[in-house]
Amino acid sequence: MTAAALQPIFDLMLDGSCKGYPQDRPATRLGDVGGLGLRLLEGGLDFPAAVLKRSALEHNARWMAEFIRRSGACLCPHGKTTMAPQLFHRQLADGAWGITLATAQQARVAYRYGVKRILLANEPALPGAIAWIQATLDADPDFDFTCLADSLEGVARLEASAQGRRPLPVLVELGIPGGRTGARGLEAALAVARAVQASPRLQLRGVECYEGIVGSQDPAADRTRIQEWLEQLAALALRCDAEGLFETGPVLLSAGGSAYFDLVVQALAGLRLSGPSQVVLRSGCYFSHDAGHYERLLELLEQRLPEALRMERRLLPALEIWGQVLSRPEPGLAFLGLGKRDVSYDLGLPAPVRWARPGGQPEPAPAGWKITALNDQHARLELPADARLRVGDLVGCGISHPCTAFDKWQVLFEVDDDYRVLGAIRTFF
Amino acid sequence: MTAAALQPIFDLMLDGSCKGYPQDRPATRLGDVGGLGLRLLEGGLDFPAAVLKRSALEHNARWMAEFIRRSGACLCPHGKTTMAPQLFHRQLADGAWGITLATAQQARVAYRYGVKRILLANEPALPGAIAWIQATLDADPDFDFTCLADSLEGVARLEASAQGRRPLPVLVELGIPGGRTGARGLEAALAVARAVQASPRLQLRGVECYEGIVGSQDPAADRTRIQEWLEQLAALALRCDAEGLFETGPVLLSAGGSAYFDLVVQALAGLRLSGPSQVVLRSGCYFSHDAGHYERLLELLEQRLPEALRMERRLLPALEIWGQVLSRPEPGLAFLGLGKRDVSYDLGLPAPVRWARPGGQPEPAPAGWKITALNDQHARLELPADARLRVGDLVGCGISHPCTAFDKWQVLFEVDDDYRVLGAIRTFF
Repeated sequence: MTAAALQPIFDLMLDGSCKGYPQDRPATRLGDVGGLGLRLLEGGLDFPAAVLKRSALEHNARWMAEFIRRSGACLCPHGKTTMAPQLFHRQLADGAWGITLATAQQARVAYRYGVKRILLANEPALPGAIAWIQATLDADPDFDFTCLADSLEGVARLEASAQGRRPLPVLVELGIPGGRTGARGLEAALAVARAVQASPRLQLRGVECYEGIVGSQDPAADRTRIQEWLEQLAALALRCDAEGLFETGPVLLSAGGSAYFDLVVQALAGLRLSGPSQVVLRSGCYFSHDAGHYERLLELLEQRLPEALRMERRLLPALEIWGQVLSRPEPGLAFLGLGKRDVSYDLGLPAPVRWARPGGQPEPAPAGWKITALNDQHARLELPADARLRVGDLVGCGISHPCTAFDKWQVLFEVDDDYRVLGAIRTFF
Repeated sequence: MTAAALQPIFDLMLDGSCKGYPQDRPATRLGDVGGLGLRLLEGGLDFPAAVLKRSALEHNARWMAEFIRRSGACLCPHGKTTMAPQLFHRQLADGAWGITLATAQQARVAYRYGVKRILLANEPALPGAIAWIQATLDADPDFDFTCLADSLEGVARLEASAQGRRPLPVLVELGIPGGRTGARGLEAALAVARAVQASPRLQLRGVECYEGIVGSQDPAADRTRIQEWLEQLAALALRCDAEGLFETGPVLLSAGGSAYFDLVVQALAGLRLSGPSQVVLRSGCYFSHDAGHYERLLELLEQRLPEALRMERRLLPALEIWGQVLSRPEPGLAFLGLGKRDVSYDLGLPAPVRWARPGGQPEPAPAGWKITALNDQHARLELPADARLRVGDLVGCGISHPCTAFDKWQVLFEVDDDYRVLGAIRTFF
């Protein structure tokens, strides 16, 4: 079934009008790109090019599978990060419970390419989008869809447009004062839960929060704040349970971005309701990981892990963006042909990790090489005056924040450890 | 010819997996979207949605045509801004001399959709990309292509891969110390010019700089620095002319991003060489304009204009991104379903300009409404506690920096002043 759902992606034709695809190659079916013998280090791609290292993806998948196994939670990874149905299918094959998405458009992409269990981690507000969800629920008995609600007004909007046979499953979202979405406080959230339960068109399936908005310069304070929030979420679940508001089981207890899923497990995995419940984590970044923001957050996470959850190895950065040196106009300056259109820059600039002369062996980027600014299509690389880097050389960069890096690519290339192209991954942003 | 080249774009099918396209509508040919009767203000699009106001586009096109007419320069607008061949064709129909692009991939997109004169404002460094350019020059006698060179090494790379019948036209790029690409100083640039002239495979067609990298908190100092740079570019052209290095006419004198094209005209339009020459401006942002960074820079530009170039009206912001209120969790807070995936944030956050209750009339966004933070998929809108905005309402935002806004959309919707959808514009990033 996987192969069938993805077939339209494999059948897409790629050519030099696709960023990264070699200009001088004829058009090729996406599914056949792995057979072309393309080698990044020989200049076999066009640059800039985004690559995913298969070994790192596989390592990260094993890492998370092991964490999930030990924690007893289940994983519904956030698909907004990659928006790549090919990767969704791997995550599902690795045991993911479903795929989380942020918008109705993203949910539609995932469904179109075969994802049958979707957690929409937002409250849909547009009648047309709710109508599509409802129509799909009614048309496809295998479609398992859940969304959020955080206000009575939102519940009323859902109810008004969810005019179908199957009730629409809903999680009540709990927020924090000054935070993002989510009902403020236990009583407000309970009122939403009661309204969902009272509607024949909606079905209360659990509770939810997104603790990932917490992030200050003080990790200890962040931890305390998140733990208190999760305790309140647990209290909300207990109250809903005591009032008999949950209409279907197992009850979903969902939280967990990519930075604090350990705290979620510790706060929620032990919660005992009157019936079965399931902790649903939603990390989107574990699969590609990064070499910046999430690398730092995961280091903190690993330090927090109790013995039973302690992992042997770290997550590895799978995503690299490679650019070519276009100019060496001064001894201490190089300009790469990659810019804001190609890499994330919201939580840190890209950092060179490797370089190569086309046809040669890759070498680690020296510590003194630093990207100090990005324009739309250029990166300013400052380096020692005697650096050997010259026009035409290739520089591979680690990125910080996968979500704002994937969305700059319609096609990423999966590579082996020698940067031979194994295949192409299509995104749908 | 225009219609024929764009036909594959008009024939693309859009459906709810495309961001902005209504979820509950059947798939439609892109060329037929204008006939669907979609009305943004009635919630007829999915949100977030990016719209281009036709009246503003037309106004900006007239503005620039008038500026070009008075200045005597010609316009080769930077296509990287929009990467929308449909807009390229309008710019050409409005009198643009050609389209500027930043990468070989972008050039390939433009050529595929019928753009026959391309200025690549970079030095291509990858053999496969240069080979594609050369093969296309040789195969299509109507293809007029020019690229940059800023070093002897770059010239050697061009020469090594430009193995064809037609010589490859080149502009020598002049930089400034500490700046971006471009040969540093007159003598270095002259050496590059001589190397281009000496190569039978390359053809020296002119000189170039990109003054847009200058931008400090001191407009007067910026102006002086740019004027000195342009004077040096003029001196370079005179030296190349005196040495007989230009191999084809008219000689191109190209500079001009979206902020200082007035200074370029004033510095270069009066330059007299031994044969014909042409000033080629490259503004990419004039067409959509913005409501932030370029709005401020154009205000400075208009203040600088001498009487003969003074324009009657200002450029208008054509691009707006509309989002829907997903949550009103506190009296002074609203969260819109638009985020870093949807709007530019590198040169300022989006700012609400209008809002509407679906089915109602649009109103100007009150001055006290302010977007203070973006997440991947959310905008945090702070507003007075008594604001009438509620869940489901629509908020339209002006953006700052078109280049990093267009690239977040595969399809933008062109609308009239009542936000009725007139058509769909496809981008190719």
